[in-house]
Amino acid sequence: MHRTKIKIAEDALDANTTIATANRADFDRAGVAVVNLMSAPGAGKTSLLERALAGADVRVGVLEGDVQGSMDADRISALHVPVVQLNTDGGFGGECHLDANMVRSALPALPLEEIDLLIVENVGNLVCPAVYDLGQAANVVLLAVTEGEDKPLKYPVMFNKADLVLITKTDLLPYLPDVSLERIRESLASVMPIPRVIELSARTGEGLNVWIDWLLHEERQIAPAQIHEEHHHV
Amino acid sequence: MHRTKIKIAEDALDANTTIATANRADFDRAGVAVVNLMSAPGAGKTSLLERALAGADVRVGVLEGDVQGSMDADRISALHVPVVQLNTDGGFGGECHLDANMVRSALPALPLEEIDLLIVENVGNLVCPAVYDLGQAANVVLLAVTEGEDKPLKYPVMFNKADLVLITKTDLLPYLPDVSLERIRESLASVMPIPRVIELSARTGEGLNVWIDWLLHEERQIAPAQIHEEHHHV
Repeated sequence: MHRTKIKIAEDALDANTTIATANRADFDRAGVAVVNLMSAPGAGKTSLLERALAGADVRVGVLEGDVQGSMDADRISALHVPVVQLNTDGGFGGECHLDANMVRSALPALPLEEIDLLIVENVGNLVCPAVYDLGQAANVVLLAVTEGEDKPLKYPVMFNKADLVLITKTDLLPYLPDVSLERIRESLASVMPIPRVIELSARTGEGLNVWIDWLLHEERQIAPAQIHEEHHHV
Repeated sequence: MHRTKIKIAEDALDANTTIATANRADFDRAGVAVVNLMSAPGAGKTSLLERALAGADVRVGVLEGDVQGSMDADRISALHVPVVQLNTDGGFGGECHLDANMVRSALPALPLEEIDLLIVENVGNLVCPAVYDLGQAANVVLLAVTEGEDKPLKYPVMFNKADLVLITKTDLLPYLPDVSLERIRESLASVMPIPRVIELSARTGEGLNVWIDWLLHEERQIAPAQIHEEHHHV
C-alpha cells in the first residue's frame, strides 16, 4: 500500500511541473519576479511581509496560501497592495502546501501587468512546500531562532532548495541561552549549496533593510528566464 | 487533476484507518497507552520529552518520526528508554507525517510487553499528522508561545483533534510584547471541543509536573478501549 501511494504522488508531481512551467511562462511574459516564501508555522512570514511591503518601493502583489481562513490576507490588504487568498482545504483536512494548479487558479485575479514582484506566502510547513514548483523565480525560507539549531538538518530538502534563508526573531537571542546563531549558520551551510543568509527581527527592524534590498534586487536583477534550469526539476 | 488527486488521498486514508485499527488492537492486548505527540517544527517536542521521561516513574517507549536522520532518537536513547526511529523519506522528498502503516512496521522492534506507555513523536507539521490515525489513545499538541496567537485558528483541524494542548516556551513570554497568553487560550477554546491546556517551560521546569501527572494519569486511567469511538474516524 505504501509503495502504491508513493507512485501516485510521483505522477501528481509530474502534472505539477507541467503547470508550474505554464505559470512561469506567464510570469515571464508579464515581467513579474515571483518569490515563494516558506517556513514552519509561526516563523513570522506575514509579519516580515508587512514590514517589507511598508518599506519597499516596488509594485508588489501577494498571494496568500493557507489551509483555511484569510487572516494573513486581511493583514496584508491593509497595506493597500493587491492580495489574493488561496485556501487549500477540501480533501483530507486541507493540503499542507500550495501547488502549481492552485497558483494557476489564482492568476486571473492577479493584476500581473500592474506589478513587478509577486510574493507567494506558502502554507506554514517545512516539508511538502519545498517539492512543489509553483513557477517561482526564487525560494525564500524563514527560520526563527526559537525553532532551534537543528531544523536545517532535519528538513534538509527545504533548506537545500532555498535561494535565501531569513533567520528571524533575532531580538529573542539574548533569552535563548541554548541557541547559538553560529550553530544555526553552520547547519544552514551544511545543507544549502550557496548559503545566502540574512539575520533580522521584524519587531526591532534589525536587518530589515538588507531583506528589502534583496527583494528589490531580486525584482530588478533576476530575470525569471535566467533561473529556469535551476528550478524546473523538482 | 486536483479532484483526481483528492480522490486518491481519500482511498489512502481508508487503508490507513484499517491499519490503525489493527495497531490499536495490538496496543490494547499489550496494555500500552499510546500518545501521539504533534506540533510545528521547533515547538519543543523532544526537549519536553527529555524532561518528562527523566521525571516520570513509568515504563515508557518512544517512537521517533522524522523525515530523515536520528538526532531526536539519539537524544532520547541517552535516557535509556527503548526508542525506535521511523524515517519517512523516500517518495517525494519525505512524507510530512507518520501513518498507521509506518507505525505498524515499527511494532516488531518495540518491546510492547515491557512498557505501559508509548509516546509517538510525529513529524513536525501542523497539517497532515492530525488526519492520519496511528492507533493512539490520545493526541497531544504543542504550541510554542513564539508561534503567535493565531495558529489554532489557522490550523484548526490539528487543535480540534487534540485531547491536550501544551503551551510551551512560556519562559519567553516576558520578551514577546505582542503575544498574550489569554488570546492563545481564547484561540484554543474556539477550536477545541474540550479545551485541556497546560502551560509550561522545558527550560525553567515551570508546569512540567502537571504534564508528567497527565502522562501518568493517561497511562493509568485512559484504557485505550474507552476512546476507540472518538479516534476511530478521522
